Amino acid sequence: MSAAPLVIVFPLYPQLTQLDFTGPHQFLCRLPGAEIVLASARGGEVEAEGGVVFARTVRLADVDRCDVICVPGGLTCTDAALDPDYLPHVRRLAQGARYVTSVCTGSLILGAAGLLQGRRAACHWAWRDLLSEFGAIPDDGRVVRDGHILTGGGVTAGIDFALTLVAEIAGDAFAQGLQLGLEYAPAPPYRAGRPETAPPEVLAAVNARMAPLLEKRFAQVRAAAAAMG
Amino acid sequence: MSAAPLVIVFPLYPQLTQLDFTGPHQFLCRLPGAEIVLASARGGEVEAEGGVVFARTVRLADVDRCDVICVPGGLTCTDAALDPDYLPHVRRLAQGARYVTSVCTGSLILGAAGLLQGRRAACHWAWRDLLSEFGAIPDDGRVVRDGHILTGGGVTAGIDFALTLVAEIAGDAFAQGLQLGLEYAPAPPYRAGRPETAPPEVLAAVNARMAPLLEKRFAQVRAAAAAMG
Repeated sequence: MSAAPLVIVFPLYPQLTQLDFTGPHQFLCRLPGAEIVLASARGGEVEAEGGVVFARTVRLADVDRCDVICVPGGLTCTDAALDPDYLPHVRRLAQGARYVTSVCTGSLILGAAGLLQGRRAACHWAWRDLLSEFGAIPDDGRVVRDGHILTGGGVTAGIDFALTLVAEIAGDAFAQGLQLGLEYAPAPPYRAGRPETAPPEVLAAVNARMAPLLEKRFAQVRAAAAAMG
Repeated sequence: MSAAPLVIVFPLYPQLTQLDFTGPHQFLCRLPGAEIVLASARGGEVEAEGGVVFARTVRLADVDRCDVICVPGGLTCTDAALDPDYLPHVRRLAQGARYVTSVCTGSLILGAAGLLQGRRAACHWAWRDLLSEFGAIPDDGRVVRDGHILTGGGVTAGIDFALTLVAEIAGDAFAQGLQLGLEYAPAPPYRAGRPETAPPEVLAAVNARMAPLLEKRFAQVRAAAAAMG
């Protein structure tokens, strides 16, 4: 291991899906030499979906550089993609990073930052097709690698993504030890985690709940894509 | 659904393992009518392992009652079990709760509160045997139910625990929709998540890393068990 810290930045934003960030964080924070930076557009407190409030985030403008940038998703990801105090810093930090990463709809933010043109990327299944608006190639993998870009699918995929990244950085044996330490031997009570395996009526109900969000999000994605120029 | 909120309390404490709390939270916060209360002994900010700081927690003494109490684990769980501003409130809130629950070593806290006598409970594999000091019956299940007590195994088991609890409260179809919405179709890159399946040299390395913690934790568990009277 090098003595230099491995700087890992999570750029947070209001109403993010907190598990997109906290899942990978729990694994990555145990990497030898990891220095985790929680940042946001304005610094200070960031409230996530469900009322969890993360304190003491630093201003993105004050973060010089990083080795890994990991962008979480959320129902508000397209608001973040249109925030001039957020998106340009994601682009800047990603340009100097060894690994550019995202979980869930965080890949839409990477896309809006112009970082995914011609690249394969994962995303939450319900919003995956929107990636193509940014010139990215939607991929239905749970963890997708294209060069130094590593993206995870929806929410809980962040854990599989994190283990993959840990293995890449610290080797298989370390990653396996971390999996054991965090007892990651998942046993979901149902096989409903993907649209291909969920009962059709469950998929229909989830799609119906998301329908009212589609129009706003699509408009925002188009505005973000137009802003890419 | 009843119109009354379903009050779910997470009693946090310094240096908890944040995913023990954030994993279940992400699922439980989407339950219809859920009112999530993040509480701690002294209120305000709580810093977890890895530097995540949770803001705006309320004082446990100010929480009247709850429907569900969910106690997370952490390397400092036995410190919490010995904290007179923490443990008595866990006991009090649990006594009026419909579901008494924990993730990972949070079950040691339930045990220290005298809530697990003669009950089967799960725990992180490395500390599971300590449950018997509190008169509990260690169970190697990932999610263990004994009456109204629902406990999850180590860290990531909190997600399987949460889905089980969601199904109990809101039914299978709702739980499946949530699993789909959070894309919980886990695909770990290794089968190293349990001591029975991890490569022996990986298990040996993890055990060696934990050895220095054993003596202090065992002493604390004995002190907490003695305090149960």
